[in-house]
This record gives sequence, structure tokens and C-alpha cells, in this order.
Amino acid sequence: MNSDRNKKARILCGSTDLGSSAFCADLLWCSAFKVPDPVTLVEIDDTRILLTSSLEVARAQKEAKVDEVVLIEEYAQRAREEGVNPLIIFLRERGVGSVMVPGSLGYDLGGKLSKHFSVNVCIEQFYPERTIKKEFEIAEIAKAQVAVDHALDEVRTILSDAHINGDYIFHRTFGDTPITSEHIRDGIEHALYKEGYLALDTIVACGVQAADPHMRGDGPLYARQPIVLDIFPRSRSSLYFTDCTRTFFKGEPSGEMIALYENVREAQEGALEKIRAGVDGFDVYTWVRENFDKKGYSTNTQAHPVHGFIHGLGHGVGLEIHEAPRLGACHAILQEGMVVTVEPGLYYPQAQGSIPAGGVRIEDTVVVTKEGNKNLSSFSKDLRSIIMQ
Amino acid sequence: MNSDRNKKARILCGSTDLGSSAFCADLLWCSAFKVPDPVTLVEIDDTRILLTSSLEVARAQKEAKVDEVVLIEEYAQRAREEGVNPLIIFLRERGVGSVMVPGSLGYDLGGKLSKHFSVNVCIEQFYPERTIKKEFEIAEIAKAQVAVDHALDEVRTILSDAHINGDYIFHRTFGDTPITSEHIRDGIEHALYKEGYLALDTIVACGVQAADPHMRGDGPLYARQPIVLDIFPRSRSSLYFTDCTRTFFKGEPSGEMIALYENVREAQEGALEKIRAGVDGFDVYTWVRENFDKKGYSTNTQAHPVHGFIHGLGHGVGLEIHEAPRLGACHAILQEGMVVTVEPGLYYPQAQGSIPAGGVRIEDTVVVTKEGNKNLSSFSKDLRSIIMQ
Repeated sequence: MNSDRNKKARILCGSTDLGSSAFCADLLWCSAFKVPDPVTLVEIDDTRILLTSSLEVARAQKEAKVDEVVLIEEYAQRAREEGVNPLIIFLRERGVGSVMVPGSLGYDLGGKLSKHFSVNVCIEQFYPERTIKKEFEIAEIAKAQVAVDHALDEVRTILSDAHINGDYIFHRTFGDTPITSEHIRDGIEHALYKEGYLALDTIVACGVQAADPHMRGDGPLYARQPIVLDIFPRSRSSLYFTDCTRTFFKGEPSGEMIALYENVREAQEGALEKIRAGVDGFDVYTWVRENFDKKGYSTNTQAHPVHGFIHGLGHGVGLEIHEAPRLGACHAILQEGMVVTVEPGLYYPQAQGSIPAGGVRIEDTVVVTKEGNKNLSSFSKDLRSIIMQ
Repeated sequence: MNSDRNKKARILCGSTDLGSSAFCADLLWCSAFKVPDPVTLVEIDDTRILLTSSLEVARAQKEAKVDEVVLIEEYAQRAREEGVNPLIIFLRERGVGSVMVPGSLGYDLGGKLSKHFSVNVCIEQFYPERTIKKEFEIAEIAKAQVAVDHALDEVRTILSDAHINGDYIFHRTFGDTPITSEHIRDGIEHALYKEGYLALDTIVACGVQAADPHMRGDGPLYARQPIVLDIFPRSRSSLYFTDCTRTFFKGEPSGEMIALYENVREAQEGALEKIRAGVDGFDVYTWVRENFDKKGYSTNTQAHPVHGFIHGLGHGVGLEIHEAPRLGACHAILQEGMVVTVEPGLYYPQAQGSIPAGGVRIEDTVVVTKEGNKNLSSFSKDLRSIIMQ
């Protein structure tokens, strides 16, 4: 490498369009540019340069929050002559000798770059500062959460107005058909869509289905059984998410089921009390898991089926539904301005002694503060709020 | 490499959830498994093996169209001991010596694999057979197109009922406010949502905005100016797309603007006549471009601003909005069962001689057949259909 090429570049490739397979949240966060086809962002010495095709260049110049917009076609001729990617010509021209790329950068492009530059993979987040949310980001997530709380209110109203016949639940809106997961999901997703939010694969899982945390749920809802409602809509304009889960019941559940619910609620509220800047997410996760163990709700992720508290305690929320930090089996010191979920759950596909079959999860999205955290949901978890008689 | 490890594996990593940054259409196509967190699909000797976490294993066993489901945690212990990725332990155990990965595989994972296996990057599509659509896939795309045709009908009704005052367009629904791009986009996207389709970033771009093919459009629509409506919804259940563009006018446009429109229409219909199995997409693209040149509608993608026919002629449509084959500057022989768009357009940000400023695009999604192609849209492009008086 000669002395003319001593600069370091950071490189991101992708599009920022929700429907694209190449969606790159870091690129949207950094450039604020909505673009359907993949573009490349290069940072050299704090200068952010967006490389786009002729199709996007005019709009990029107007809309992208970058220092420079470069037409990639200007490098096409030389790239063809040398038989290399145009990005390589560009980087060389700018005196770049080494590049830092995210682990998700295409293996193909990474391999090509490695023939001309020293390539370092960024193992952690590409922009660690993305975990600390700015005011407008928190406002976007909070607005989404208000819409979720309204949607939960609507579900509560429907279940309150409904009546039980045998094991099923009926409501005049759906005539003689028992209320299903699909009915409730459709209602939630349509209501959120009207408010400007995209809710996809909303979980409405009842009874044994609720024992699988990623089961969307289908078919009739059952009276007196847990109905897990996990709603994670995304703003259609800003693309920010929120994430929230409540577990409802129609009709009084068994004492064992109430005990299961109350254990999850106490764990969730206990965890919320611990969440504050400076705390290690791992410690809060461990506290929840040990607390469940102590109360007799054991976890086994090697068993078939797996059961207990089988997932992490939470995760960051922003332009991705699951982003850093993770609150789970790894250390992660919480910082002021992080937005994270706190979502313990207990899952038993089969009854175990006095533990009934089923699943319960309770989840809030909170902003970490110096003193503790600010819960973006105001939807109650008390038994009288979540059991509809 | 010892003789025990002579097997070849093909590897895909990703999730199949629309909201995920790791969305992998190939993985959804191959496994038919909806999964929010990334999983790994390994093919060894025509055996498809899905590696999932304990969180997904039960659902994968029920839902994934694969030959085997493997719990990745079973390799975690040995992986930790060796300090490698669990996938490496798994592949070694199965006698794999070399792997084929898509170019989009993470550079990080690819690098790790390359220390233990011979890694080959698949430069073309990972599943070339994905370009040939099965009957149910064509049915899904066709259904989406019916919904788009309905949405276009609704826009036509609104513009027909509207009246012109000066340069603006008014409709009783919106009171004293001129009709805007946003009004029309909201109407289209809501109508499609109700039908089960997700339309994001629908283009409703008028006048000079229409001269930028990726401009979503905002603000008032103008009378007698082209209104480009590019609608590409995705089925919320199957995740298949369709793609369709019409250019409408409210009020009689100038003769020059009609000439621009008619040139695009003739090019589009001429291209449609050429699309059939065995034809090279590049030849059709070239015919369109030369046809435009001949008629005086020149293209310059080096100019500022770029103008003319500045994009490809079309692209495959399926689980991705833009997928193989591309009909443009590269050779691509069309085959029976491919679903492609045919979408010439002309874009002039500034007037040039007798060519007025503005943009026009017309796009259909068609199924390639032996004899020609089947247009999935029945929405007319005739002047009397697209000019609302």
C-alpha cells in the first residue's frame, strides 16, 4: 500500500425501502434517505459520501443528509477497463487504504474489496450511537405506543362485550362464529394502519398456541385461557417501531393460571424497577430467570418441547424491531436514552405439576433514564384490566 | 481436506419476516417458513436442513417445507469449546468440505466459513428456478394485479368527478384543498390494505416530479400535467408482489404532452408484442431505446439532470419487487413462466425543444409464454381511458 492511500473508510451498502431485501437500517439512520435500490455510503474522515446511480442522484442531492453525492456511473468506464467494481476505483481515487464494513456486508463485495484494501469487519454495531435515541426518535416510538395502547383498548372492549358459550367466545360482530385469533389480529392491524402504522404478523395466540412465543396464532380463542397479544407496529412514515405485549383472559382463569400470570407480572415489574442507566442487562435477565426458578417455574431449552423462560428479557427498539442492546445472556450496560423492551414470559406446551399448559408474556418498551426508565405504555397489567368477565 | 469431508453444501441465512432487516426471499421461497429471527438453511445432496434456535424449532418442525430440522443449540457447547460458529461444527459433522453461498451472505459469516471450507460465491441467482413461476405464484401475482386495477379504477373515478380551477384539481371529498399526491396515495394504499395488500411508497408524481422515476410525489396535482401512478403492492399473506404504472391526466394536455405519452404507449405496446419465450430482454430494451431516439426522444444519463429513457425496460417480479431477470443493458433470455414488468418511460426535468417538461411511464406485469405473454393487468392505456375531462 503506498503512502497516497492511507485513509480509512467505513462502508455501508443497502437500500432503505421497507419492501427491499437489501434494507439497511444503519444506512437510513445515517443518511435519512429513502431509496428503493441499493446505494453505498462511504465515510472518510467524518465526510459522508453517498454513491448512487443516475436514477437517484438528483433526489439524493436534495434529500440525503450527507456531505457529498457521487454518481457511480462516473466510475463505470474505468471499472470496466480494469474489470473491477466501480466502488474500488472510487475508494482508490480518494486515497483509501483500509475499510471497515458491517458483518452483514455481502460476502461477494467484501471479497472484492479485500483484494484492494485491508478489510476490517465491525463485529459490534456499526453505529453504536444508534442505540442512544435522539428526542425525535423517542417521540416517534412513543407515538407508535400510544396507537398500540388504543388498539389494546379496542380489544378489551370487544372481549368485555363478548359472551362465553362453552369454551368459546362470541361477539355480535362475528355472528355465530366464535371469535378467532384472525378476527382480533385483523382488527388490531387495520386500526393501526388507519393511524399510520404497519403491524405485520401481530401475535394473537391463545392457550397452548401461546406457549410458543413466535406463534402468530390461529383459530378460535378460548375462554379462561391466556390470549397473548404481541403488537409491534412500525410507523409508515418514519419506519420506527414500538413493541408491546399483554396477556388477556376472557372469563376467570384457574388459580394456577392466575399464579402463572402473576409470576410473570411480578417478574416484569421487578425487572422494570431495575432498569436504569449503568445497569447490566444480563444482571436483570439473570434476576428474572432465577426468580422464576425460585418460584418453581423452571426453564429447559434442551427439552422437547422447550419450556419455561426460553428467550431473552428484551432488546433495543428503533428502526429495527430487534436491535442492540440485547438484554439476555450477554453483558450489556444500559445507557441513558436507550429504548429497550422488558418482556419476560413463561411457556409450558404441556402442564407440569401445578403449572398449567399455556403461555404468558408481558412486555413494555421503555426509555432508559439516569434514575430509572420511562414506560412508553400506559396500558395496565392488573388482573382487573386483563381479565374480562 | 480429508476424504471424510467431500460433500458440498449450499447455505442460505436470513429471516422471512417482512419487517426484518435480514429478509431473505430465497429462504422463504425454498422453505415456505415464516420466521422473524434469522435461521440457516443448508442443502446437502438434495436434502434441505433448517437450523433454528430452540425458540423456533417446534414451529419449524410443523411448518417448514424441509427434510430435517436441526436445533442449533445442540452444537453450541462444542462451538464454544472450539471458539467457532456452531454452523461450522454442524457442517463438519455432516462431512461437508465445500460450500456455495449467495453473494449477499454476511461477510463476517463468509469469512468464518472460509477458514474451514472452500467457499464459492454464487454470482447469479441462488435459485435460478425461482424466476420460473409456479401456478400458485402466478395466481398470487395475478390476484394482486386485480386489486391494483381496482385501485386505478377508483383513482379514475375521483379524477373524473373532480373539477379544474386554474392549474389545480378539486374534489368535494377534500373540500377547498386542491387534490394532492398524498390524497391519492392514501386512497390507493388504504384500498389495497383492505384487500389484503401492502402498498408502500406508492408513486403519485405529477408534472416535473414525474420526471424523476423514483420520486414518490407530494403536494398538489396539476391539471393537464402527467400524473404517474406506480403501484407495487405485496400480498400480506403470501408476500408476492405485482407492479403496475399508469400515467393519468386531468384535463386535456398539450399536443406535445400527448405526443410524449403516445410515444411511451407505442414503445410499451411494441415491447409487449416482442416479449415471448426465447427472446433476449436486452434486444427488446434496445429496440425501445432506439425507437425513442428515432422519434427524437433522446436519452442522456451523463447529463445534469439525466433525461430520456433513463432506466431498464423491466424486471422480474415475485417475492421481491425487483428480481431476476432484468430486462436492460445485459443479456437475459426470457423463459416460459417468467413474470416480468415491461415499463418504458420518458423523463424530461426541463423542456427540450418541442418536448415538454415532465415524465410518463407505462408498466404492465406479464407472464412469459411460448407464444408471447399474458398481461396480468386489464387496465387500458388508451387516451380516452387515461385523460379525464
